[in-house]
Amino acid sequence: MSFLDHIRACNAHDLSGFRRFELNGQPVGWVRHAMAEAMADALPGFLTTPDRLTLAPDITGFDARSDRLADAAHWLAETGVITPLRGEFYPVGTGWGVPPLARLDRAATAVFGTESYGLHVNGVVRGADGAPRLWVATRARDRIIAPGKLDNMVAGGQPIGLTLADNLRKEAQEEAGLPAALVDRAVSVGALGYCLETPEGLKRDRLFLYDLELPPDVTPVNTDGEVESFALWSLEAVAASVRDSQDWKFNVPLVIIDFLIRHGHLTPDDEPEYLALIDGLRPPQR
Amino acid sequence: MSFLDHIRACNAHDLSGFRRFELNGQPVGWVRHAMAEAMADALPGFLTTPDRLTLAPDITGFDARSDRLADAAHWLAETGVITPLRGEFYPVGTGWGVPPLARLDRAATAVFGTESYGLHVNGVVRGADGAPRLWVATRARDRIIAPGKLDNMVAGGQPIGLTLADNLRKEAQEEAGLPAALVDRAVSVGALGYCLETPEGLKRDRLFLYDLELPPDVTPVNTDGEVESFALWSLEAVAASVRDSQDWKFNVPLVIIDFLIRHGHLTPDDEPEYLALIDGLRPPQR
Repeated sequence: MSFLDHIRACNAHDLSGFRRFELNGQPVGWVRHAMAEAMADALPGFLTTPDRLTLAPDITGFDARSDRLADAAHWLAETGVITPLRGEFYPVGTGWGVPPLARLDRAATAVFGTESYGLHVNGVVRGADGAPRLWVATRARDRIIAPGKLDNMVAGGQPIGLTLADNLRKEAQEEAGLPAALVDRAVSVGALGYCLETPEGLKRDRLFLYDLELPPDVTPVNTDGEVESFALWSLEAVAASVRDSQDWKFNVPLVIIDFLIRHGHLTPDDEPEYLALIDGLRPPQR
Repeated sequence: MSFLDHIRACNAHDLSGFRRFELNGQPVGWVRHAMAEAMADALPGFLTTPDRLTLAPDITGFDARSDRLADAAHWLAETGVITPLRGEFYPVGTGWGVPPLARLDRAATAVFGTESYGLHVNGVVRGADGAPRLWVATRARDRIIAPGKLDNMVAGGQPIGLTLADNLRKEAQEEAGLPAALVDRAVSVGALGYCLETPEGLKRDRLFLYDLELPPDVTPVNTDGEVESFALWSLEAVAASVRDSQDWKFNVPLVIIDFLIRHGHLTPDDEPEYLALIDGLRPPQR
């Protein structure tokens, strides 16, 4: 394994198997060809051509589009294509910062290949020498996603209608038991992206990244059952484990690689793949 | 003006006017079509087809390739296509971290569209409240490049055969009079890239970025005539000036935008173009 292998693994996909998903004449996602045909056959209001899936022109407005996508999500769950619906809604649109055109149950986003957003928080504790250590979470063994895998201190999906700041407070309370006053010290430090083909479709994720420096006497405590335990790791130990193992939830190595780059642990003099890592963390957007 | 306008300005180019420049069968740059034809006519050892410019197959090895490129650089300077040669050599190759295939005078890199490397150092001073301020250089009025424009505290091109750490010490001494012991505290924090069409050709630059936190009692002092004066600016003042003015050397706004993102001054909740800025700082590499 290498750092770059983790980035490549998160970007394995072949767009030739997909056609555009459009709303209001604008590209908002990607759907597998056979799935587009199946949807157009089974679901009223869905139309397809060889290069795109879209909604009938009389279906206009956020609510009407969201209703049709909800029908599709239910159909997908009933037919077993996706896991049960979450009742948590993600925006469907042309990009971050642009008002969404519809909303879609989180469980169905990969089928439509819409861009999903999330946040990941690096929990940092500085030693007496100033060197950062990182809080590492071990995920609970009963989770559907990545049971027992290593994770960032706090991470979560970004539902529609919530600010990132509010979601950060909520997730940090649920996952690490951290009070808002402490969480508000988190510094927004950037974002990364990846595009991964999955059995459901195309997982196009953008993760907003935060560094939260914690006092040495604060220990995160999970409150929602997602995390089994927390441990404080040296940056050297984190880097070696990320590079050499598959012990981490699939997208967390990318967050760690970004952290190692921003904090001078990976440098262009010492890491021949330095620019490939940086380019790989922000692949061309489709 | 907007932050994104500065990024777009650094990436204005049309590759249809260029053909590949190859060495040893590998792509290392881009050359304007007419320039490729002119070189093949005027310079022994240069061959061209409609898609590429390259060297004759009997010209092998780093030194022989570099000799042919030196001939071309002299011819370009004599015919007035480029400014006088610098006697400073840049690597020509397939990318950072890969041994270069040749060397080329810095003045000729844009004609061949080879990837050039440089380093930029953000000089940071933290106030009593922890808020970072930045040392801003005003470039000397007698410079050929960007006279009188605002600049980072330290910046320089990366010649072949020098480590970035050594170049950083050298540039920080020349441009800001900083001792090596202080400069070695600089933290490598990432890299950005841009690709700009110029009268000479294609300027494909990758900048390695450093944050150097200076004690409040240290003032940079220029020793090589490149800087007229230094001043300590609040981050708000830097951000407003970068966003709204053309007072900065053309590529420095990109370094500042990256700094504003990494230090939480630009956030995804407040900046609708947040992801476009992040993507724009690492455009797809050609």
